[in-house]
Amino acid sequence: MSLHTLMLLATLQLAAAEPVALGKPALTMQDILTASSAADWRDVDATRLLRMDLGGERKVWIELAPSFAPAHVKNIKAMLAERYFDGLAILRSQDNFVVQWGDPDAGDAAKQRPLKKAKRTLKAEFTHSYDNTLAFTVLPDADGFAPEVGFSEGFPAGRDPQRKQAWLAHCYGTLGVGRDTDSDSAGGAELYVVTGHAPRQLDRNITVVGRVIRGMEWLSTLPRGTAALGFYEKPEQRTPIVSIRLASELVVAERPKLQVLRTDTPTFSALIEARRNRLDDWYKVPAGYIDLCSVPIPVRDQPNKMEQQ
Amino acid sequence: MSLHTLMLLATLQLAAAEPVALGKPALTMQDILTASSAADWRDVDATRLLRMDLGGERKVWIELAPSFAPAHVKNIKAMLAERYFDGLAILRSQDNFVVQWGDPDAGDAAKQRPLKKAKRTLKAEFTHSYDNTLAFTVLPDADGFAPEVGFSEGFPAGRDPQRKQAWLAHCYGTLGVGRDTDSDSAGGAELYVVTGHAPRQLDRNITVVGRVIRGMEWLSTLPRGTAALGFYEKPEQRTPIVSIRLASELVVAERPKLQVLRTDTPTFSALIEARRNRLDDWYKVPAGYIDLCSVPIPVRDQPNKMEQQ
Repeated sequence: MSLHTLMLLATLQLAAAEPVALGKPALTMQDILTASSAADWRDVDATRLLRMDLGGERKVWIELAPSFAPAHVKNIKAMLAERYFDGLAILRSQDNFVVQWGDPDAGDAAKQRPLKKAKRTLKAEFTHSYDNTLAFTVLPDADGFAPEVGFSEGFPAGRDPQRKQAWLAHCYGTLGVGRDTDSDSAGGAELYVVTGHAPRQLDRNITVVGRVIRGMEWLSTLPRGTAALGFYEKPEQRTPIVSIRLASELVVAERPKLQVLRTDTPTFSALIEARRNRLDDWYKVPAGYIDLCSVPIPVRDQPNKMEQQ
Repeated sequence: MSLHTLMLLATLQLAAAEPVALGKPALTMQDILTASSAADWRDVDATRLLRMDLGGERKVWIELAPSFAPAHVKNIKAMLAERYFDGLAILRSQDNFVVQWGDPDAGDAAKQRPLKKAKRTLKAEFTHSYDNTLAFTVLPDADGFAPEVGFSEGFPAGRDPQRKQAWLAHCYGTLGVGRDTDSDSAGGAELYVVTGHAPRQLDRNITVVGRVIRGMEWLSTLPRGTAALGFYEKPEQRTPIVSIRLASELVVAERPKLQVLRTDTPTFSALIEARRNRLDDWYKVPAGYIDLCSVPIPVRDQPNKMEQQ
């Protein structure tokens, strides 16, 4: 056991033994959300919002993160403009890990769907060099996968203040860009969403481009594939993708007015604290700790302006 | 920010900046499992193995943990002997959290299914006082939810050496006993399985009785309920439970010969190390860390004895 590991264990033991301050008013997350003001929420920009249509009511809404992966987000938008994903399929659903979609014939130059202006591969954007303009709300709790973790522009993220690098974390609902062994082997034609326990070992190893903010259940409940890595054995087991569109391309009636709780406000910090120590009557031993991927980032429909007044 | 939190952050920063020793032979989990010996595996005791039959091929296999919750495991076995669960249903599926089953009429004395010898409620078994006979393989990495975490008898667990308490952790697949606000309000008639990111805040707050070791996909893919907490709005949306049986009650042909990798061996420690630092070519930045619920506890069919010789 290394010296650092011993120090870690010693300090975490202190933390875990630290008693929770009782007698405080127990604000629940719901109390905090009910008391939130309009300024605590931000409208989701329709030019950063994807609608993945799996048929019928099965629509998955994904917010893109251009600040963290500008080239990949731009390239994925170029693919959308070419209708690249329409008629392709979900190829893989591995229990407690990911679903993944793309072209089943990818890699076969003769059969694969061609790209027009969009690029097949790009330079990796595993991390992002940040400066002081990057908004970052630090989670007060320690994390084993990153020197610091927190929230940036509504996404769970890690950062390394020494190297001045930031990156999006792999939590439930995270959208990433599948790649081969070479770091620069992908461009967004194959995408995955995390459907299980946070696979944080992927952080800094793959380009993350967004997260699902509504409709996650249409991905998480897909039948698991029975071939290696959860790939479907037979083409008919795959779920076809009707289309993927930017919300800004949809007619107004089809666009949801989604809002995400801002992650750079006292309201969000209060929410974190309410989840670190659950003080409602049900909990007998509040944890006094929370891991990055257990912090909810609430999403709602924009309230009717008249109702708000 | 408290002094402890500052210390935690400082030491975890050191850990996260510590370079991984490269140039070592990269043993993958598969290499380790291939090289494992028969003694690295244990047969699952048929008197601790449940088969939940949801109809057709949908069979979920659950290993009970009598060392951690002896009274609840005994009571659940009494319920099985009374065929208590047969014909009841899965009542709830909340995305990224749990599925839960039991009697939809529970709490209504006139309508609920009666128990015979089994008890409706028991004293909580949230933690277990341990002595030196408890096998416990400590995970080398720190954890924010417990002074120490590791593996005991094949289950992910936490413990507090000062209080001499141990408990099973809430990871993907963990089986727990639903309860009301009162700690002693449950006895096993309502059970849940974790189907999302590990809700470790539940640790020490609820009685854990086992984990799913095969067939998890039949629970994790159930449609999500649309009422509060993921309950199904209409009775016909529930999934009926054909039966829950101890494997020891099944005819031999229906009993799988399951084996679980022992968690108290050098082989398991090597597996943890292989997952802490993924050194295969795909990974560019090995994490040098793993959280408790990301460590796989492999399960296999017992190899044919003739083949092994």
